[in-house]
Amino acid sequence: MKQLRDLLKADDLDGFLVPHSDEYQNEYLPPCNERLAWLTGFSGSAGMAVIMRNRAALFVDGRYTLQARKEADLKLFEILQIPQNNLADWIAARATTKTRIAFDPRLHTIRAIEKLRQSLATCAPLCQLVAVEQNPIDSLWTRRPAMPETPVALLALKYAGRKAETKIETLQKRLKKEKVNALVLTDLASIAWLFNIRGRDVPHTPLTLSHAIIHADKRPELIIDLQKIGTRARKRLSEYLVLRPANRLEKRLSSLANGARKIAVDPQKTPCWFSDCLKQAGKAVPGFEIVHLEDPCTLAKAVKNSTQIRGMRAAHLRDGVAVCRFLCWLEGQRPGTISEMDAAQRLENFREDSGKLIDISFETISAAGANGAIVHYRVDEHSNAMLKNRSLYLVDSGGQYLDGTTDITRTIAIGQPSRDMRRHFTLVLKGHIAIAGSRFPAGTRGVDLDALARMALWKAGLDYDHGTGHGVGAFLGVHEGPQAISRLAMQEFLPGMIVSNEPGYYRTGKYGIRIENLLLVVAEKVPGGGERPMLGFETLTLAPLDLSLVEPELLDKDEIAWLNDYHENVRRLISPHLETDKERQWLKRATRLLPA
Amino acid sequence: MKQLRDLLKADDLDGFLVPHSDEYQNEYLPPCNERLAWLTGFSGSAGMAVIMRNRAALFVDGRYTLQARKEADLKLFEILQIPQNNLADWIAARATTKTRIAFDPRLHTIRAIEKLRQSLATCAPLCQLVAVEQNPIDSLWTRRPAMPETPVALLALKYAGRKAETKIETLQKRLKKEKVNALVLTDLASIAWLFNIRGRDVPHTPLTLSHAIIHADKRPELIIDLQKIGTRARKRLSEYLVLRPANRLEKRLSSLANGARKIAVDPQKTPCWFSDCLKQAGKAVPGFEIVHLEDPCTLAKAVKNSTQIRGMRAAHLRDGVAVCRFLCWLEGQRPGTISEMDAAQRLENFREDSGKLIDISFETISAAGANGAIVHYRVDEHSNAMLKNRSLYLVDSGGQYLDGTTDITRTIAIGQPSRDMRRHFTLVLKGHIAIAGSRFPAGTRGVDLDALARMALWKAGLDYDHGTGHGVGAFLGVHEGPQAISRLAMQEFLPGMIVSNEPGYYRTGKYGIRIENLLLVVAEKVPGGGERPMLGFETLTLAPLDLSLVEPELLDKDEIAWLNDYHENVRRLISPHLETDKERQWLKRATRLLPA
Repeated sequence: MKQLRDLLKADDLDGFLVPHSDEYQNEYLPPCNERLAWLTGFSGSAGMAVIMRNRAALFVDGRYTLQARKEADLKLFEILQIPQNNLADWIAARATTKTRIAFDPRLHTIRAIEKLRQSLATCAPLCQLVAVEQNPIDSLWTRRPAMPETPVALLALKYAGRKAETKIETLQKRLKKEKVNALVLTDLASIAWLFNIRGRDVPHTPLTLSHAIIHADKRPELIIDLQKIGTRARKRLSEYLVLRPANRLEKRLSSLANGARKIAVDPQKTPCWFSDCLKQAGKAVPGFEIVHLEDPCTLAKAVKNSTQIRGMRAAHLRDGVAVCRFLCWLEGQRPGTISEMDAAQRLENFREDSGKLIDISFETISAAGANGAIVHYRVDEHSNAMLKNRSLYLVDSGGQYLDGTTDITRTIAIGQPSRDMRRHFTLVLKGHIAIAGSRFPAGTRGVDLDALARMALWKAGLDYDHGTGHGVGAFLGVHEGPQAISRLAMQEFLPGMIVSNEPGYYRTGKYGIRIENLLLVVAEKVPGGGERPMLGFETLTLAPLDLSLVEPELLDKDEIAWLNDYHENVRRLISPHLETDKERQWLKRATRLLPA
Repeated sequence: MKQLRDLLKADDLDGFLVPHSDEYQNEYLPPCNERLAWLTGFSGSAGMAVIMRNRAALFVDGRYTLQARKEADLKLFEILQIPQNNLADWIAARATTKTRIAFDPRLHTIRAIEKLRQSLATCAPLCQLVAVEQNPIDSLWTRRPAMPETPVALLALKYAGRKAETKIETLQKRLKKEKVNALVLTDLASIAWLFNIRGRDVPHTPLTLSHAIIHADKRPELIIDLQKIGTRARKRLSEYLVLRPANRLEKRLSSLANGARKIAVDPQKTPCWFSDCLKQAGKAVPGFEIVHLEDPCTLAKAVKNSTQIRGMRAAHLRDGVAVCRFLCWLEGQRPGTISEMDAAQRLENFREDSGKLIDISFETISAAGANGAIVHYRVDEHSNAMLKNRSLYLVDSGGQYLDGTTDITRTIAIGQPSRDMRRHFTLVLKGHIAIAGSRFPAGTRGVDLDALARMALWKAGLDYDHGTGHGVGAFLGVHEGPQAISRLAMQEFLPGMIVSNEPGYYRTGKYGIRIENLLLVVAEKVPGGGERPMLGFETLTLAPLDLSLVEPELLDKDEIAWLNDYHENVRRLISPHLETDKERQWLKRATRLLPA
């Protein structure tokens, strides 16, 4: 901190912003880009520090206030919760005349800096936001981990379902329609999807660090560390794109601005360094213009093709087998003998047993008892609790396979559950079924369905403080947009989209309940007398729900029918893939039918 | 049209926009402001004509395409449906270089013109939008009805519940907080609410045509035709505001710009003439600034105080008595003997019998058989159908009373209803009950609940193409914002808001079904074991639902309980106010309980 402040002083800067996000704005960061953690010790997945001459603050959201207080040095950092506290206001209150706040333009999106500038203009008009050439953290960070350099793999057509050439062509048509000469792509998932490439540069998501420029009328450029491209990949990639070494990024952007050109960037995703570069280079070029365009890959990627859908089904069957074997194993353990870490490890082993696991799709949430009530709980050596008798165990986990990505949460009674546990589980289940069994016309958005998952809880004076579902990629991010089920989800559902269905209930200090399956949006048959084509969901996830937690008298006939259908389906599909009688017996019991 | 085109040519204009809306952007217009109807014959409540040198088009929404085709001269006007067709695109396709499209800045909001300018800039960059000083329609319109001059009435505190002084003070505090020197109010309902005044200048809504300037630190100005202010009103009004003659409006706006001042306008509501005036006057004034501020009266007015709530309950009891007497009378008529107009007139008479009806709150929708499937049907001599045997009759109507505004829709079987009619009515009823009986946490918005009203229909492959509910004023507009229940309703519910609950189903060519009650947002008790304060609805409307249309086997226990509770409540409250045994007997039958 002292060194950082010295660097700032030397450059006549009064403050510096350190966001969690890196150059790629991806959910997961390679260790070498964990600048916020390096500076503050805070290891959460979102946050922003601001370092002023005499003070420093760390802004985190409600999920992370406790963790930030634990991990950061409170003598150095004031921990502030957003959105109750606001970065601009905090700066304004500490700004003197002509305060200069620096930021690394590679780490903040165009939109984020735009918004911050607007806020500061209102509350601290004399405060200046200054982009720095060189991030002072990078200068100070000794023993910084190396940049990841995992090889680029081509995703076979039998998984991708559509050739890169076809996707590129469609994208180029769109650019022509928008009268745009080129699009700068900075979203790693968009690049991976468009070019049918995968990497392992980032934990849990099969991405390769890179950038791309898509021209409306010539081959796209992939700007990447060429070390990562093997001979075979180079050959195939050269059929549809031009490879450029990563260190030429700035040059390529500059050359884009030559001639009168319209260049598109997505202001929500693209760091402002890119538009600054382009602006600088295009300054003297008459007719040069930067236009804002929502990354067209985002929506295209969200709608899975039939090959990807088949792959997702296969991945969920394989993943379901692993989860069932885990649940059977867990039932056989005496309460009080297994820790959260044991259980998480065991679950990962079962997934590895498939021989096809590329990675888990996120760090497993393995939460016993009261830890389950911490929505974003991550187990470590200190917190590692035992799965005790008469408690609930919540496990949220998933896998990355070549053919698909999974994400499943099960809540399991350890020993005899209490009446409250059963009642709360059943209320959450009612919400889960309301979503899973819903039918809705084309044009319906996630925001329209979110309340269905909450109605039963609301009637009981309860609720949960997170969205009901997020989009999921096909061997890509376990969280992807634009589809979702939440108060903010304005994207219409389209057949082929995949979204999670995960209502929950969290009793602070006692237990957490969440039931999560992944859903595929499908066209439904028009029922007799119906007039309008309807959409609905096919549940992809295959693993029993703990029937010892279900109160049948709280369910209506339709809900019981859904649960029985689901369990029948699980048994029918999973059973042939279990290896031992014990597991098959367990599955039979776990999927027994409730009397209608 | 010829004359209009001559006028345009003389001013070197290539086109002219004629919107339905007038200077006040109110839902209902005084006859003297029905410019669109005068020009085109089209009498709907929304639309826009554009007259070019050789062509003209009339843009209307889906509700009005048929009506527009019937009413307008199709040799003169092309009828185009929005949003499928777009005004800017239409103009662009017909624009030559430097096309000058004129508009009357008094009739278009700041936001509307801003948007149109933006669209034109993209699709017809050489096209100019030109504000005209004098509306050519006004010059051509001979025998134009006179401006309404109904007297201004003070709304007594026993109805308003809060003194104008108090409301003004609160508003001034808000202006100071926003660092705004003055606010220009152009919304007639805001002015009526703020100053506790009512008029009858506009059909169906108790408004007085006027404008207001609210100063942050001195008395507000009411700019109004002073003829309308009687001695008593003048005396009371002078205690808290300054009266200015209507013809001084422009002068008052100019004087506002004197000195360095920040003036607020609501760009969604205020015609751009106002900001043009202010801009012009403030041009030379250093520090002068126009800021955009959502009209603060809108939300304040939507949250009814306890006096208004009592008033709304009383108005609904009185209105319910009239509706019950009407329904009893209707049951006594032989099928095929009563026309839509007969029924509407009879219903109005029953409302008048209360001795307290100020006006109906909108033109009654009295729709027999297939006419019920036309969502915005208005009966006239030509369409006037008979209420035939084995058909449905849909009647949507309401009253304005000093203590409140009502809006109720009932669907009644004439003779024996078919199975489909019963099934569809029951599906709509399930949606109605889902909303009426819902409980939800603070922060829930209309958009979050809209789907609840549709779930039962969606399951059957059916839906309806309108929102589920709109806000309702207290002796003000029967449609008011910002509260609503629809895909677009982003306003959080607050206790004291009133909103309609009116799901429907429309079988084209056969019948229409709608069930509408008004709801008051109330705080609910936290149920046992509940953790969060919840909101819910109190149903204000009191009139039986036609039980001959209910299929009890489609309802679950909770739904039957809701229906029985509602009918018990209706009987208990209405019965003492009925005058004849016949009516009391009818009510008893109409509110009989269904076996649980």
